[in-house]
Amino acid sequence: MLEKLKQEVYEANMLLPKYNLVTFTWGNVSGIDRESSLVVIKPSGVEYDKMTPQDMVVVDLEGNVVEGDLNPSSDTPTHLKLYKEFKNIGGVVHTHSRWATIFAQAGRGINAYGTTQADYFYGEVPCTRDMNKEEIEKDYEYNTGSVIVETFKELEADSMPAVLVKNHGPFTWGKDPFDAVHNAVVLEEVAMMAFNTEVLSRAKEIMPDTLLNKHFMRKHGPNAYYGQNLQTK
Amino acid sequence: MLEKLKQEVYEANMLLPKYNLVTFTWGNVSGIDRESSLVVIKPSGVEYDKMTPQDMVVVDLEGNVVEGDLNPSSDTPTHLKLYKEFKNIGGVVHTHSRWATIFAQAGRGINAYGTTQADYFYGEVPCTRDMNKEEIEKDYEYNTGSVIVETFKELEADSMPAVLVKNHGPFTWGKDPFDAVHNAVVLEEVAMMAFNTEVLSRAKEIMPDTLLNKHFMRKHGPNAYYGQNLQTK
Amino acid sequence: MLEKLKQEVYEANMLLPKYNLVTFTWGNVSGIDRESSLVVIKPSGVEYDKMTPQDMVVVDLEGNVVEGDLNPSSDTPTHLKLYKEFKNIGGVVHTHSRWATIFAQAGRGINAYGTTQADYFYGEVPCTRDMNKEEIEKDYEYNTGSVIVETFKELEADSMPAVLVKNHGPFTWGKDPFDAVHNAVVLEEVAMMAFNTEVLSRAKEIMPDTLLNKHFMRKHGPNAYYGQNLQTK
Amino acid sequence: MLEKLKQEVYEANMLLPKYNLVTFTWGNVSGIDRESSLVVIKPSGVEYDKMTPQDMVVVDLEGNVVEGDLNPSSDTPTHLKLYKEFKNIGGVVHTHSRWATIFAQAGRGINAYGTTQADYFYGEVPCTRDMNKEEIEKDYEYNTGSVIVETFKELEADSMPAVLVKNHGPFTWGKDPFDAVHNAVVLEEVAMMAFNTEVLSRAKEIMPDTLLNKHFMRKHGPNAYYGQNLQTK
Repeated sequence: MLEKLKQEVYEANMLLPKYNLVTFTWGNVSGIDRESSLVVIKPSGVEYDKMTPQDMVVVDLEGNVVEGDLNPSSDTPTHLKLYKEFKNIGGVVHTHSRWATIFAQAGRGINAYGTTQADYFYGEVPCTRDMNKEEIEKDYEYNTGSVIVETFKELEADSMPAVLVKNHGPFTWGKDPFDAVHNAVVLEEVAMMAFNTEVLSRAKEIMPDTLLNKHFMRKHGPNAYYGQNLQTK
Repeated sequence: MLEKLKQEVYEANMLLPKYNLVTFTWGNVSGIDRESSLVVIKPSGVEYDKMTPQDMVVVDLEGNVVEGDLNPSSDTPTHLKLYKEFKNIGGVVHTHSRWATIFAQAGRGINAYGTTQADYFYGEVPCTRDMNKEEIEKDYEYNTGSVIVETFKELEADSMPAVLVKNHGPFTWGKDPFDAVHNAVVLEEVAMMAFNTEVLSRAKEIMPDTLLNKHFMRKHGPNAYYGQNLQTK
Repeated sequence: MLEKLKQEVYEANMLLPKYNLVTFTWGNVSGIDRESSLVVIKPSGVEYDKMTPQDMVVVDLEGNVVEGDLNPSSDTPTHLKLYKEFKNIGGVVHTHSRWATIFAQAGRGINAYGTTQADYFYGEVPCTRDMNKEEIEKDYEYNTGSVIVETFKELEADSMPAVLVKNHGPFTWGKDPFDAVHNAVVLEEVAMMAFNTEVLSRAKEIMPDTLLNKHFMRKHGPNAYYGQNLQTK
Repeated sequence: MLEKLKQEVYEANMLLPKYNLVTFTWGNVSGIDRESSLVVIKPSGVEYDKMTPQDMVVVDLEGNVVEGDLNPSSDTPTHLKLYKEFKNIGGVVHTHSRWATIFAQAGRGINAYGTTQADYFYGEVPCTRDMNKEEIEKDYEYNTGSVIVETFKELEADSMPAVLVKNHGPFTWGKDPFDAVHNAVVLEEVAMMAFNTEVLSRAKEIMPDTLLNKHFMRKHGPNAYYGQNLQTK
């Protein structure tokens, strides 16, 4: 079942080592079939160079394994929570990519210092709050999803496709698994540059709002004009 | 038309990923044919590994597409402004290369701390001023070119073939597209080293003027003696 | 003798350049056969691309060469001391990997700032004390092992498979040579991220204990549920 | 003439891009034949991937070209000065390698923080003084050699095979061209680690003298025991 999605999720997972976002098996990509509400996700702890599309695990939104011989990623409940709450997303990625994780470890969001960030993220990439003892000891991965959702009370998941989980690492999402990986690559890039912008200036002057708006809107606004307007050709 | 220039602009664009200056499609190179005043530039948002020389777009100096099926880079008006004002240049490059962008995000020029910079740039690589609301909201890319030109009121584009656009990233130029890419590579290198020189010393002592002059002039002055004096052989 | 272990130790040594943990010959991996109490270790100063499994040297726990034409690594006495004191370990690695060595040079342990570290190391990776003049001048490598053991008086080698030797570099260990190399890779990764977490925050807030416990225990505790529970299938 | 030395100097030059020590043509290696007092050096400004052993230039110690169709490196007078003053050396390397150049740009020597440095350099790698106006304007490259020699008044070139030229970059040397490149690689490595050791600690505590002596002497002292004692076998 869902052979096409399994292939895509497999390929998207294989992009993580290609883009240098993971060490060993520290990362996972999933994708959802919105029609059946089934999610395809990487198995837990399997090495990338031994993984095949058939190793992908199919689960329902409650986390029951519907197809597959291997355990799904231990982070599966977090992925499922995001699919349930963020209705437009089709893919989710979790990594421990270095620079994004450094912000997560410092408990810091990533300020928008430049147009590279504005091209993808509409402002500061947020960091979640500390989880409390109860949240950590019981249903930890599900609660990780819950604090992410809580962080987005005032935010729009569609214009801010990334979050940093405190002391842990980043989650990103997108319209499909490849788009979610794309955002994970960009997040790492802007994290590296924001970090060093702060080191250089030790003055956290944020880019002007007008410039932020301009860059985000020229790619994503109603009159976006970046890239090929393929639909009108 | 301009098949040779298209091939060169294509090849120069392909050097950007080779030298690790771009992620995804974040960069563009153009070249000008001064005789016809036509500019060849990378199409917008096309992936490097799918691009061909025939995808290059030909525009006139007002930005009208003269040949090509794809949209030109959304940064085209900035390139055109530079060709109009800097009469000797034959190629322009824009990237979001990491270290140069970090200086741009910090709103800082790159001080000349060493001979590596002096070999190519005659002093501090400048950073543009903030653009105002009007400049950003209307004709943004053209105005980006204008603030660059404004920054060069007291500077010579021929001896300072690079600029940082505030909160955005670098533009470089040269006598042809390859030379402009060469300068983009050097800019990234000197930005990385200037950054860390400041971190190490936290004392912004600039190299002596005499040394700056010596290194620049031994490569570029009337009695330059670096490299092969091929013309005299 | 011990042909299988020699092959493993050889392969584990070859992973050091693969994972970018060594420059030239600056690193060594050993493995122990607990039945015979014989240790197989890399020869001293041999280049990785010229090394063969047959170059591995077999020594007993007192350091006598039992088989092999080459000198064993000059760090052999340190390896032997660790095998004698840490009864469960089967492999030892020493490198001068950059970020771990930076902590060693600063005389600092690596604080646990995130779950990446908690997944492998149960708290702060310790740094040894200064060795005194006598310890350095006589039996230096053996004494290096002794100060490591002294550092673990209150620590469990099984849940903290790494140490930093002050002004020198890291040693890691594991259940076999490959596991020890795996821990050396992880150590370098968490060192890089801990370093930059401190630079970013300049506030050494350590991750909550509950979170540290959770992550370590979900991989290593009695009810571990990360990865494939192969034994129950 | 000197075909074997030309081949060696060529190969040693090709190691510079392999070890990521140079961008474009920013580096040069030379070697000396002590019997004839002739020096073989890289030509100026030739790209590495187009260079052949036959492009190497032969000069005498006064800088006269004895054989070769191309100009020798513009840094040749500095190399020659070093060969004249440091009688035991057989190869010289100059690069703008990033971390060593950062120390040169900050006008700082590299403190000995760890055994990696002690294994090769007997203490702090020194940085030259500022050159004055006269020294820069006339015979600049020869005078660069002179300030290096001046820096070594109280130092032994054999136990300190590297120097940083202020605001410029590193020179290293060794018993032959390959050994000089080896030292250039090590210098870059220890510069990177010393830099970050200082950032981490902001306390410049130098490693104990006894440890420094131990590590240097176990490789280089009269009773050295690191590596294979091939001569005694």
